[in-house]
Amino acid sequence: MGLIGGGPGSFIGPVHRIAAELDREIELVAGAFSSSAEKSKIAGETYRIDPARAYPDIATMLASEAAREDGIDFVAITTPNHMHLPAAKAALEAGIAVICDKPATTTLAQAHELAAIIEKAGKPFALTYTYSGYPLVREARARIAAGALGTIRKVTVEYPQGWLSKPDTGKQAEWRGDPSRSGVGGCIADIGVHAFHLAEFITGLRVTRLLADLGTVVEGRAVDDDCQMFLRFDNGARGSLLASQIAVGERNGLSIRIYGEKAALRWRQEEPNQLWIFHDDGRSELVQAGDPALGSDAQWASRTPGGHPEGYLEAFANLYRDFARMLRGEEGALVPGIEDGLRGMALIETAVAASAAGAGWVDFTV
Amino acid sequence: MGLIGGGPGSFIGPVHRIAAELDREIELVAGAFSSSAEKSKIAGETYRIDPARAYPDIATMLASEAAREDGIDFVAITTPNHMHLPAAKAALEAGIAVICDKPATTTLAQAHELAAIIEKAGKPFALTYTYSGYPLVREARARIAAGALGTIRKVTVEYPQGWLSKPDTGKQAEWRGDPSRSGVGGCIADIGVHAFHLAEFITGLRVTRLLADLGTVVEGRAVDDDCQMFLRFDNGARGSLLASQIAVGERNGLSIRIYGEKAALRWRQEEPNQLWIFHDDGRSELVQAGDPALGSDAQWASRTPGGHPEGYLEAFANLYRDFARMLRGEEGALVPGIEDGLRGMALIETAVAASAAGAGWVDFTV
Amino acid sequence: MGLIGGGPGSFIGPVHRIAAELDREIELVAGAFSSSAEKSKIAGETYRIDPARAYPDIATMLASEAAREDGIDFVAITTPNHMHLPAAKAALEAGIAVICDKPATTTLAQAHELAAIIEKAGKPFALTYTYSGYPLVREARARIAAGALGTIRKVTVEYPQGWLSKPDTGKQAEWRGDPSRSGVGGCIADIGVHAFHLAEFITGLRVTRLLADLGTVVEGRAVDDDCQMFLRFDNGARGSLLASQIAVGERNGLSIRIYGEKAALRWRQEEPNQLWIFHDDGRSELVQAGDPALGSDAQWASRTPGGHPEGYLEAFANLYRDFARMLRGEEGALVPGIEDGLRGMALIETAVAASAAGAGWVDFTV
Amino acid sequence: MGLIGGGPGSFIGPVHRIAAELDREIELVAGAFSSSAEKSKIAGETYRIDPARAYPDIATMLASEAAREDGIDFVAITTPNHMHLPAAKAALEAGIAVICDKPATTTLAQAHELAAIIEKAGKPFALTYTYSGYPLVREARARIAAGALGTIRKVTVEYPQGWLSKPDTGKQAEWRGDPSRSGVGGCIADIGVHAFHLAEFITGLRVTRLLADLGTVVEGRAVDDDCQMFLRFDNGARGSLLASQIAVGERNGLSIRIYGEKAALRWRQEEPNQLWIFHDDGRSELVQAGDPALGSDAQWASRTPGGHPEGYLEAFANLYRDFARMLRGEEGALVPGIEDGLRGMALIETAVAASAAGAGWVDFTV
Repeated sequence: MGLIGGGPGSFIGPVHRIAAELDREIELVAGAFSSSAEKSKIAGETYRIDPARAYPDIATMLASEAAREDGIDFVAITTPNHMHLPAAKAALEAGIAVICDKPATTTLAQAHELAAIIEKAGKPFALTYTYSGYPLVREARARIAAGALGTIRKVTVEYPQGWLSKPDTGKQAEWRGDPSRSGVGGCIADIGVHAFHLAEFITGLRVTRLLADLGTVVEGRAVDDDCQMFLRFDNGARGSLLASQIAVGERNGLSIRIYGEKAALRWRQEEPNQLWIFHDDGRSELVQAGDPALGSDAQWASRTPGGHPEGYLEAFANLYRDFARMLRGEEGALVPGIEDGLRGMALIETAVAASAAGAGWVDFTV
Repeated sequence: MGLIGGGPGSFIGPVHRIAAELDREIELVAGAFSSSAEKSKIAGETYRIDPARAYPDIATMLASEAAREDGIDFVAITTPNHMHLPAAKAALEAGIAVICDKPATTTLAQAHELAAIIEKAGKPFALTYTYSGYPLVREARARIAAGALGTIRKVTVEYPQGWLSKPDTGKQAEWRGDPSRSGVGGCIADIGVHAFHLAEFITGLRVTRLLADLGTVVEGRAVDDDCQMFLRFDNGARGSLLASQIAVGERNGLSIRIYGEKAALRWRQEEPNQLWIFHDDGRSELVQAGDPALGSDAQWASRTPGGHPEGYLEAFANLYRDFARMLRGEEGALVPGIEDGLRGMALIETAVAASAAGAGWVDFTV
Repeated sequence: MGLIGGGPGSFIGPVHRIAAELDREIELVAGAFSSSAEKSKIAGETYRIDPARAYPDIATMLASEAAREDGIDFVAITTPNHMHLPAAKAALEAGIAVICDKPATTTLAQAHELAAIIEKAGKPFALTYTYSGYPLVREARARIAAGALGTIRKVTVEYPQGWLSKPDTGKQAEWRGDPSRSGVGGCIADIGVHAFHLAEFITGLRVTRLLADLGTVVEGRAVDDDCQMFLRFDNGARGSLLASQIAVGERNGLSIRIYGEKAALRWRQEEPNQLWIFHDDGRSELVQAGDPALGSDAQWASRTPGGHPEGYLEAFANLYRDFARMLRGEEGALVPGIEDGLRGMALIETAVAASAAGAGWVDFTV
Repeated sequence: MGLIGGGPGSFIGPVHRIAAELDREIELVAGAFSSSAEKSKIAGETYRIDPARAYPDIATMLASEAAREDGIDFVAITTPNHMHLPAAKAALEAGIAVICDKPATTTLAQAHELAAIIEKAGKPFALTYTYSGYPLVREARARIAAGALGTIRKVTVEYPQGWLSKPDTGKQAEWRGDPSRSGVGGCIADIGVHAFHLAEFITGLRVTRLLADLGTVVEGRAVDDDCQMFLRFDNGARGSLLASQIAVGERNGLSIRIYGEKAALRWRQEEPNQLWIFHDDGRSELVQAGDPALGSDAQWASRTPGGHPEGYLEAFANLYRDFARMLRGEEGALVPGIEDGLRGMALIETAVAASAAGAGWVDFTV
């Protein structure tokens, strides 16, 4: 694996590295960690890779690695959003598979362009919608697919964070607030798409209409930082999606509740090893990671017995294990792909435009 | 106290009785418990009152009680909604104070009529928005009034229930689904107004605009059973309100989260003795009933030391204690009145009309 | 009902009054509220009873009430422990039923004396081990009796409080720290007996041996304030009991966990409307007050639907409703009696003596 | 790193591998994974190491690796207990550092022998008392050391599990129930020592006396499976320790509560990212992983921002990071060593002997 991005100060770069290597199926051996050659070199030392493989730029990495017998099999892209397309394009056109951070690109048009490139390249491409890697998220998905809830009637998904409740400071906040690097969406692009993906991933439904109310609470910020949306799914179910980065005191409060005709379920990212099932006869059931009754998807995604908490890094690692299955040509990977990327980009553009126009309900299409 | 309604099969009638008498400031001595004289008599026995004072109808009760030296000082109205106005009117015009279940009436026009009657009568009138009686709700209100959160930016209030997730059965469900008795609102009138009142009560803010998405999920139901709304408050804060009666597995899940510039708070009705405060420096504080740091409103509203849970009946009783203060001409009562009733009725009518018309954002006025 | 004790500053007196009257089966009409006639009069006003029936002492109350046609049917004793026996004796010998706060008396010998008096009088006698009044405690008891856990193997009961973590102040703390009024036990007598009773009440087992480790943490205190005990039950199950009043930050943390061959259960007083059942196949089930699957004991003990929390006062009221059943000669009351009182007093004396002697395991008999 | 043990069917071997490599400071390159050369070879493939370095036995590994320039720097011992001493001895005498699973050995005498070997070898030795690696455990320790609780008065530590509630089956259960491989202790050796270590690690106190009540609940089992102990610490504080493997429905329920003069704290392994602090003025504070107020030990031990849960594997990895610090000769490592190993072995032997003898309180010394 070669890493693109993840240089000094990066949060998500080291996370990708740990996640990729956790199960010893993948090894980080090369990187173009920064647009600065100097910083890329420093990062190479931090990651403890062969200094010769800490490259000054992507093109050099791709060329040099192609020349090695033990060259990289894929790249992981962890740059700010505006670099996703050029980096992925370069790799795919060089015949190298790609796993990329979300959102796919900075515009829907770019995402379509990327989709075409992927199709032409015929190489695996994955997007790290991290939360789909949790064992109990996959259990929820499997149970719903098996009909445990009956017809789904209502979906409530939220993603409150508080870390941007003050004017931006720090590298992490800075590029996210700059539309030229993050795209037109702020909060909606950074975390709203996670909530959206989670809702579609677990329910198997697809959003067909939405009504968006996006706002910017912190003065001087160029993008949205507080979003709410009503949703309609393709089976007629009513939904709501709240995402905020000015929700003081919230850490990473992604959660979802899904109400069906026969039962409901609830999952919270901050207690990821618990899944509640509420039955219409009044029974309340707590499903826990490691339970013997878990289905094969959840069991595959767990490494320890019940009561030994796994968390965010292990969920992330599950996406890499899935990606490794794809690279080996195996079936069964649940890791999101460009299809999810297109839907995420469409969400951002549709919501931002509809909210700005005060458009009320609008159709949602990719 | 005389009770109007609360006959055989009533849930809320006995609750009013317990709440009224809990602190021995009020005694139930008379009632017109049912529109059936027979049932009213039976109810009188159940409540263990003097059989002579279990009246066949409201008019008889008012006349007979007026003739007694120890006649009732007020009536509590616990009938289906369509009887609120005539019952209150009769009592007030007879010079008798009224405490009435929410919502105030079945239409906003009726509520205005009632407001005029109240003003003319010059007698105390209270509405039992129960949840405003909880000690920690009052603590939340006091802390916000004292500036603990700074400027409020965001309010998320929800009220999911699941008991109407199937076609209606039973007395409780039956009249609520009949617009001629409940008014145009279903879920919005039954519980949506509670959520709305709680949000305004705690924050001290007033809603000025809203966008409503109401629906009927269970086939054949004549009123809404699943509602969601976006709100704007008079200080510009963004809000959302979710209320549902088809949320399988939910019991009485009223909860509120309020995010300010400096801190946030969270309260859940099903754990009413806990109030969370989250500070913008990362500190998370759990305030509990009975804590020495509670303000005077919360302390007044508690009867037991910390760790001895009080609940719904005690919260309800606090409204009666407040009403007793009003009857005695004392200051400080926080019990809701016709002003809150008007806002509740306006909410129902505005939301139902706006949702039906697909109207998008509309102004909210009384 | 006549109240003995419960004068100015009393915590438990008003609780008894509310609990007794909550269901309108019992009315407080008289009292000897204090050993001071003056204070008794003042308390009478607070309780809003007929001033003529606020008596200067117990004897006067019993004599005067006996002379009235509408005289009291029973007395409730809420004095410090050393007055329990004389008060109960006077009432029972006057042919008046008694409901009394726990522990029964100040010594086991006194408790045996009281048992003899009760037997001779042939009148109902009840002890308010409050926590046995909670609906889900009764559900737990019923499920275990029905075999839901299989053979019980292990019982863990705890009762941490923190309110005596500093040298005593206040009326509540003061008499509890004075052996001449509270008996030889401090924490063990005040709350340890509650934990002990709860364990025997729910499991249906009886303790046959114990090993006690009692201590006094706060300097200058004359009785124990921190206790731990190992238990053996009559079926061989191993148990532990922790009770403390110096556990800073704890409010009223009574909780119990019972492990059987097939399943386990957990209940916590501070979340009284939840009962956890853990099955040996890994399923975790949360039973909640108001659930349709609850047995008749729990349903009888509830007044509101699920999600409308009931608490300490309602649990207490259930004991009074049980006592009213006894007064009416009905079956089914689960309220504790002198048998429980004897076991509680034996616990106190056995534990205090065994701990002081460093006696290791001792037999437990009444 | 070379791994000893961790062959097919091992739970803890792969955990050590992940933990060791998580931060890319250590790499698994060799192993003697099983006493069967065949199984060791298979395991080598599973771990994806160079087949030439999957050795048939420890001696061969040590000799072969010593001959390589890139030979291992240390071994990790993850065998059943009875192999700890011979494996550690062989490594240390070959000049190789050792990190070893707990308990140190199967007898206290062996542990003393090991201590002497370690001293003579002068090489780093660490024991993986995993739970001391959690960030908030280290925060708790740092706060207590800084006086946040005042004098400690009471310590309650528990470790309930339910996985051995039935007669033993499976490799994990099997060797633990065989005294020739596990030593004289069953539950006490497997998890009791974890609880004991946690209590001493966090409080900084040392146990000086104890009273043990160990039992075997499941018929036919040769060692204890349910333990309880009273403790006295060197400052006079009273403690209790419960450990059980027949507590049906419990997963890995290690938890600790520590009550001081000024405040108390609580931590639970299954919610490892939360630490409760309860102040004697009634304030309840929830400290969470990632909070800005955390001390340097906790911050060092975290890899992700607040709200991104880390768990068991990351805690384990912190011990390896500490061990890597020791290997590099750096200060500050909090990883347990042979001193902790001696205390653990003394606990097992003292408790087993005292319980069998019905000895009451006994002194605890190493």
